[in-house]
Amino acid sequence: MTEALSALLRASRGTAPADHGVPIPLPGHFAGLIRIGPTTIAATTDTVGTKVLLADRLGRWEEVGEDLVAINVNDLAAVGARAAGVVDTVVCARPDPPRFAAIGRGIGRGLRAARCSLLGGETAVVPDLVHGIDLGATAIGFFPGGRVPVTGRRIRPGDRLVGIPSSGFHANGFTLLRRVLDEGRIHLRRPRPGQRAPLGVELLRPTRTYTEPVDAVADVPGVHGLAHLSGGGVRNLVRLAPQVEFRLDRWPRVPDLFRWLQDRGGISTREMFQTFNMGVGFVLVVAPRAVPAVQARLARTGAADAVEIGTVAPGRGIALPELGLRFDGYS
Amino acid sequence: MTEALSALLRASRGTAPADHGVPIPLPGHFAGLIRIGPTTIAATTDTVGTKVLLADRLGRWEEVGEDLVAINVNDLAAVGARAAGVVDTVVCARPDPPRFAAIGRGIGRGLRAARCSLLGGETAVVPDLVHGIDLGATAIGFFPGGRVPVTGRRIRPGDRLVGIPSSGFHANGFTLLRRVLDEGRIHLRRPRPGQRAPLGVELLRPTRTYTEPVDAVADVPGVHGLAHLSGGGVRNLVRLAPQVEFRLDRWPRVPDLFRWLQDRGGISTREMFQTFNMGVGFVLVVAPRAVPAVQARLARTGAADAVEIGTVAPGRGIALPELGLRFDGYS
Repeated sequence: MTEALSALLRASRGTAPADHGVPIPLPGHFAGLIRIGPTTIAATTDTVGTKVLLADRLGRWEEVGEDLVAINVNDLAAVGARAAGVVDTVVCARPDPPRFAAIGRGIGRGLRAARCSLLGGETAVVPDLVHGIDLGATAIGFFPGGRVPVTGRRIRPGDRLVGIPSSGFHANGFTLLRRVLDEGRIHLRRPRPGQRAPLGVELLRPTRTYTEPVDAVADVPGVHGLAHLSGGGVRNLVRLAPQVEFRLDRWPRVPDLFRWLQDRGGISTREMFQTFNMGVGFVLVVAPRAVPAVQARLARTGAADAVEIGTVAPGRGIALPELGLRFDGYS
Repeated sequence: MTEALSALLRASRGTAPADHGVPIPLPGHFAGLIRIGPTTIAATTDTVGTKVLLADRLGRWEEVGEDLVAINVNDLAAVGARAAGVVDTVVCARPDPPRFAAIGRGIGRGLRAARCSLLGGETAVVPDLVHGIDLGATAIGFFPGGRVPVTGRRIRPGDRLVGIPSSGFHANGFTLLRRVLDEGRIHLRRPRPGQRAPLGVELLRPTRTYTEPVDAVADVPGVHGLAHLSGGGVRNLVRLAPQVEFRLDRWPRVPDLFRWLQDRGGISTREMFQTFNMGVGFVLVVAPRAVPAVQARLARTGAADAVEIGTVAPGRGIALPELGLRFDGYS
């Protein structure tokens, strides 16, 4: 995939004149930046992917609508941009007003969580192209008051890693997750042992929106790097800074739901950490002496549950020493 | 469709605070606007739709790649915004590097024609959701040097309609078009009588990019309205100004290719004009005394073929008097 996408990107290099905006290269991030006069705009785009198949099985569509906004604005947050607006694209096989209304309610929740606006949308009914429903969106953000994008370039050994818990699986790893459900013939409408909510509801829980706490700390000089742990799990950290080691030696207790899935699916710990967020959805890389101020601001803006999860060390890649795991990158 | 989409939009209204950007309502347009500090940003989103099925039959993918940029930047041009950047989303059933590279080359052509940059992209391989390939994109534009968005609000009886020819079917009406091809068992690799290019190549010809000539006139005070004739054909004009009649009494000779399709498909003239662009892809609504200056600027920026096609009159809807046709709107 990466190869095909880079072929597409390489082949499509433009040569735009400066009076059409000046793109700012930003390796290692999902957000693209362009300077337009005095304003720098950030854009991200992503789709909910196969989580919609679970929404379909359960006939619940609000959650994936909220995901659609959250996954895109969280990628904006990962460069320190503040979310301004979202455009959505629903590609489906047939019109379905009640379903669209539920997706719309979810989009509304996502917009309120990210405090941004819906700028437009497209609904394409193309049964010749799709059999399911694909939910995609683009988010547009900016850097208020002369804020400098947080790129990860200032990350250095000694920095601390502060993690904000996830709300569940977010919108990643659903192909593996569905395989476990199907092979185990697991009922979605029953709760897991010891739980009250049906399993399907737990699995669908929408992606946590990290924009407000991250916006509150993006101007702090000691904030060196920001990462949204989406597809690829902890490996997302490597993109921020390939020349150091991210030593995750204080990873919090992995939530019950992930451990249940691992157990039911007989999945290796390695595969779990490279596929799912394992309980931490967003990571901030912070200079040691800025940690207390960052934690205090996070606590005031909805992320009182943020915790230190490790440090930056000399070396390369990602280490989870207590689990004996190492990742060098996405391969 | 419109109903389902509006349900979605209604349900998803946010209440974003002003320090996250201020959306500017723009009824009747596909572009959404938001003011971010001193800069107003426009965003459009659209997909190529079922034209990709023709690309697939012919194994030619550059044209639809170019369409993907053109259809979106032309919607930016329809509010007078200058294109800055595009993000693309390819949703498909399997990775296919040569195909992606061809789409990428087409996107590159589109970007060069619109003089803007690729800001990012997403390629989702989701065989559980799609069987074909869906090409979507979002374009981001702006209003240089204090330019005011062209909304259509200043359109009044007496204004002239200046049309810029299309390059063919662009990316609209392909479901009807494919029906005619299938029912008539028409060969795509053979030319039509009297032509040299294979029919398939004629049908695939990429959407003309109108951004440069439109950008050159968007600051002229007499330019009251701009319309990109995409899905819905001439009816796109109604969205600009519901309180006047668009009197298309000088529509240029309909290109041969459209007349051939109408003939082979036994399609009514009414259906042709409400489905296809019929040879005119972009319309400018211009105060009479500004017409010579507008035409001169269009001629200098690649649209020397622009011609007057009608006038604005008191009344409502769209009239093609020579053909005895009237449209009141999209219904």
